[in-house]
Amino acid sequence: METLEIQTSTRSELVDITDGLREAVERSGVEDGVCVVFVPHTTAAVTVNEAHDPDVARDIVAALDRLAPPGPGYRHREGNADAHIKAVLVGSSVRVPVADGRLLLGRWQGVFFCEFDGPRRRKIEIRVIEN
Amino acid sequence: METLEIQTSTRSELVDITDGLREAVERSGVEDGVCVVFVPHTTAAVTVNEAHDPDVARDIVAALDRLAPPGPGYRHREGNADAHIKAVLVGSSVRVPVADGRLLLGRWQGVFFCEFDGPRRRKIEIRVIEN
Amino acid sequence: METLEIQTSTRSELVDITDGLREAVERSGVEDGVCVVFVPHTTAAVTVNEAHDPDVARDIVAALDRLAPPGPGYRHREGNADAHIKAVLVGSSVRVPVADGRLLLGRWQGVFFCEFDGPRRRKIEIRVIEN
Repeated sequence: METLEIQTSTRSELVDITDGLREAVERSGVEDGVCVVFVPHTTAAVTVNEAHDPDVARDIVAALDRLAPPGPGYRHREGNADAHIKAVLVGSSVRVPVADGRLLLGRWQGVFFCEFDGPRRRKIEIRVIEN
Repeated sequence: METLEIQTSTRSELVDITDGLREAVERSGVEDGVCVVFVPHTTAAVTVNEAHDPDVARDIVAALDRLAPPGPGYRHREGNADAHIKAVLVGSSVRVPVADGRLLLGRWQGVFFCEFDGPRRRKIEIRVIEN
Repeated sequence: METLEIQTSTRSELVDITDGLREAVERSGVEDGVCVVFVPHTTAAVTVNEAHDPDVARDIVAALDRLAPPGPGYRHREGNADAHIKAVLVGSSVRVPVADGRLLLGRWQGVFFCEFDGPRRRKIEIRVIEN
């Protein structure tokens, strides 16, 4: 078990955490298994997608804003209902296979922490399970 | 392996199943690992989100109704195509880390069974995997 | 670890891969555990939903096209930003419990590879983790 801590810098953004995961997998010593990444927050999420062109992350943030617009029109009174909805749509965890002691990501893939109610200090829980 | 059974009470609702999961983790005797929750239904889902203010769950249900409106306009003839689409958007399983024999949920997090075509009798499959 | 390879035939479609998973679970010899399915692509996804009526899969594809319409209006210049967004909404992995050496799917459930930027040759990574 490892905990990664990050500071997000704006209300809604995707933060590439792939390097932190690679290091956690290395430290775990697991050769063959699955890396589970879990976000212990209700207005943030985690996803796997393209890490090459940063415009993809911006398109994802913009699309989620269209699907769950920030603002009034919700029952929850804290002004972040849209962030809770986005967190449900994206999900609170991902798994990436581990082979030969390394994350088995596709060529274009990275793992992204998804902030929907920042800027905040956030935690990411990482577990590397041996097969 | 454990199976939780619940009875939902309306067409679309989020049911907090965190207590049932806590008990399953305790019974499993696993100290360190991951709790996998799987829904064996195609018009229901499971998610992790805020368990404190019940309005968050209501906002989530309402948002999903906007993204996949109930009613006609689908090819599937059983009148529940929207429920299948919501199930895909939310997902059929979640994982929560287990540490020191307990579910490692964030302060505001709970685990919710998501009913989209109720009321029905539903099953939830729980597996606690040792690290 | 096993890798399944498939050829998709159109831009956006759901391909039932349940049989391939059943065979991988059988070959693994695992009696009790979890089958993890991971898609190493950024414009494709994997989901669990109804395998009986093919209209359900068509409704899901059409609904995702409404939520993230193909076409211009995105920053990413490759013409497939909608596919990246759909991949985030659906997710890059699923887990299905394994009991008595078999996938524990619900009566109506199948596992679907979701192509959003085909036709392409695609890979699916399968891991069967013992409990």
